[in-house]
This record gives sequence, C-alpha cells and structure tokens, in this order.
Amino acid sequence: MIDLYTAATPNGHKISIALEEMELEYRVHALDLMAAEQKQPEFTAVNPNGRIPAIIDTDNDNFSVFESGAILLYLAEKTGKFLPQDPKKRSQVIQWLMFQMGGVGPMMGQANVFYRYFPETIPSAIERYQHEGRRLFEVMDNQLAKHAYLAGEEYTIADMATWPWVRIYEWSGIDIEGLSHLQRWLDELAKRPACQKGVLVPLPSDLTDEERAVEIRKMVTR
Amino acid sequence: MIDLYTAATPNGHKISIALEEMELEYRVHALDLMAAEQKQPEFTAVNPNGRIPAIIDTDNDNFSVFESGAILLYLAEKTGKFLPQDPKKRSQVIQWLMFQMGGVGPMMGQANVFYRYFPETIPSAIERYQHEGRRLFEVMDNQLAKHAYLAGEEYTIADMATWPWVRIYEWSGIDIEGLSHLQRWLDELAKRPACQKGVLVPLPSDLTDEERAVEIRKMVTR
Repeated sequence: MIDLYTAATPNGHKISIALEEMELEYRVHALDLMAAEQKQPEFTAVNPNGRIPAIIDTDNDNFSVFESGAILLYLAEKTGKFLPQDPKKRSQVIQWLMFQMGGVGPMMGQANVFYRYFPETIPSAIERYQHEGRRLFEVMDNQLAKHAYLAGEEYTIADMATWPWVRIYEWSGIDIEGLSHLQRWLDELAKRPACQKGVLVPLPSDLTDEERAVEIRKMVTR
Repeated sequence: MIDLYTAATPNGHKISIALEEMELEYRVHALDLMAAEQKQPEFTAVNPNGRIPAIIDTDNDNFSVFESGAILLYLAEKTGKFLPQDPKKRSQVIQWLMFQMGGVGPMMGQANVFYRYFPETIPSAIERYQHEGRRLFEVMDNQLAKHAYLAGEEYTIADMATWPWVRIYEWSGIDIEGLSHLQRWLDELAKRPACQKGVLVPLPSDLTDEERAVEIRKMVTR
C-alpha cells in the first residue's frame, strides 16, 4: 500500500496519475496547504522540505519518498512500468523528466504566482514567466512533432510529470496557439482514464456538484 | 570520451565536477552564452532546450544527454560511482538531486535574475527569491546536522549538483548565518580537488591573472 500525501496541485496530480496508471493500491492523505499542514512536524518527518507530494510505501519498511520526480522514478522502478529498461531510452525519459522538474514546473509555477497570487501586479515579472513558459511549450511542440510522446514513442513517467502542468496553460496565462503537436498530446492524455482520475485527487468530499464540475472541466484542454 | 558543452555557470560546474570526480576523459566545448551559441542549430541538435550543459558520449554511439540532473545520473550509472546500488539509498540520492533540480537551482536562479540582472529593481521579487533560497538552505542545514552529506553518509551526485549553487550564496544575496552544518559541508567540498578543478571549467584562455584569481576566490566559501 502507498500512502500518498497530496493536494490538488499539478505536482500532486503527477503522482495520483502515476498510481492510477500503475494500478497500485493507495490511500490519499489530503493536506490543507492554506492551513500549512505541510509544514507540521508530522509531515516534515516524511518530507523535510515541507512540500507535497510525498509517499510512504508500507510494503517497503515504510520507506518515504519526497520530490515528485523522485517519487515517479521510485514507482516506475518498483512496478517496472512506464520507464524503459534499455539504458538509452531510460536516459531519454529521465532527460525529459528533468526538463519538467527544472523547467516547466518552476517556470509555470512562477507564472502562476505573479499572474494569480502575488500581492503586487508586476507586468515585467508576469511577462518574463509567461514568455519562458511559451518557449518551453515550443520546445515540447518540436519534440512532439517528431515523436508520439515526450521521450519517444512510448508513454512514460516524463509525460505524467509534464501533462498536469501544461494542461493548466490558461490558468497560467500562456497560450498554445499554433502548437498543434502539443495540443494533440494534451488531448490524447486527457482521454486516458488514469489521467482523468488522477487530477481529481484529492477533491474535498464536501465539494458541491457545481464545484466538482468546474474541476472536471479543467480536464478539457481546449 | 565525453564531449562537454558548457559555460561558467553552476549548472555547467555540476558536470565538470562530476567528470573530475569520476576520472572520466572529457573535452570541453565552451559556449558563449552572450552570443546565444546555445540557441544555434548545431547545439539544439544536442539539447533541444538550448541550455547548457549537455554531453555527447563518444564511447556510446555518440549518445547525447541534456539537463544537468539527467547527465549526473547517466555518468553515475556509466561509472558505477557516487550513486549507491542499494535501492533505498539510491532513491535518497535521487530525492535530494530532485530537490536541487526543482528547488535550489530554479529559486537561486530567480534570485540572481532579480538581484543582479533584471532591468527593473523589484524589491518584492528579490525578497521572494532570497527568502525562498534561505528557506531551502535551512532545510539542507537540518539534513546536514544529521548526516555527513545531503543524501546520507556518502558523498554523491546530489552533493555535486547542489554545491555549485550554494557556494555562490553571496552572489545571490542570501546569507547563511547560523547555518553551521551547511557551512561545514560547503567548506569540506571546497577542499576536494575535483570541486576546485570543476569550477574552473571553462575559464576563457585569455583571462588575466587577476580575473582568474577572482574566479578562484569565489571558491572560498566564507
């Protein structure tokens, strides 16, 4: 059994999608980020960085793993799924996983901060991160013009890491106009049952039907 | 032989340090970032993202690897060095490597942008990233209070990934006051010959003695 500590964010969704894809049994522990539950000692014992997601694998001496990229690699190696054995193909998956971890995630994250949450409106900062987001999307579009998925012809953990970020491009204020290959990939992943289920973890149990519908509508990528 | 495409930045230095530590033969190709050489088609064929570092392994069918975190994993697996075989220990190294790739690097990078390079002075943005940098340093200090190195009792690629960033804390305007464990780790790594050599790659050959001395002085962590 995997204990998943998470919240409704792209980094959290990476792992719920992976757990669904890999058909692993898991138990969801939803952390209230507004109440800073991720900074409490109970949780920093699991992730010293106090960020979601993190997991505990009860079938492996309660081994804990933090950082979404490390969790994806751990689960892929545990199950032998979505990460090729061939060393070159495997490295290509890790390259695109790192591209997400060091590029897409942090840059879209900063775009969201300055576009949505920051107390001041700073046009040059918004522009900086939206521009960088668009640039990264173009790099992906070029790759997806040549290959079915980010790391080649197979769907892998690199796609699972990246899709939860890219699908919220509108929320980040980044357009994908003209990026037909990226759009094709977004749409294809949106049809996967594991992706559809993964992005609904964790939905608060007291959500109204309307609120739930809004969340589900975010699945639609155009 | 490893062909290393790099420049004098923390991400570049991770790889020159690793190549020195692993005693691999390598050839340095210094890219002029000011002239945007990393955006030229010759280089984007190696790294579609147009960023340094990247490598080509001439002993493995000219296999190319981009993203510093992926290069470190590739080199560690190629040599069997600085990444434990034990799955749990190995995962711990990957967790701290991801912590650097998704946290320390991007956040210190943004601190540098707003503190050093951005055309406008935006105090709230500078403060945001310096504060996050300090928070990440405190997470590391807690870890280094309990362990010799970031991922445990062994020096690994997680340390090689992180040290080139943390050592320039002054450049980023982030203080390390009171973080004695982090300071101990900074000082210890600064004494390693591979770290000392690695951060001098690539120094322009036409550097004056004085300029070279400035670069070398950046090695001193207090």
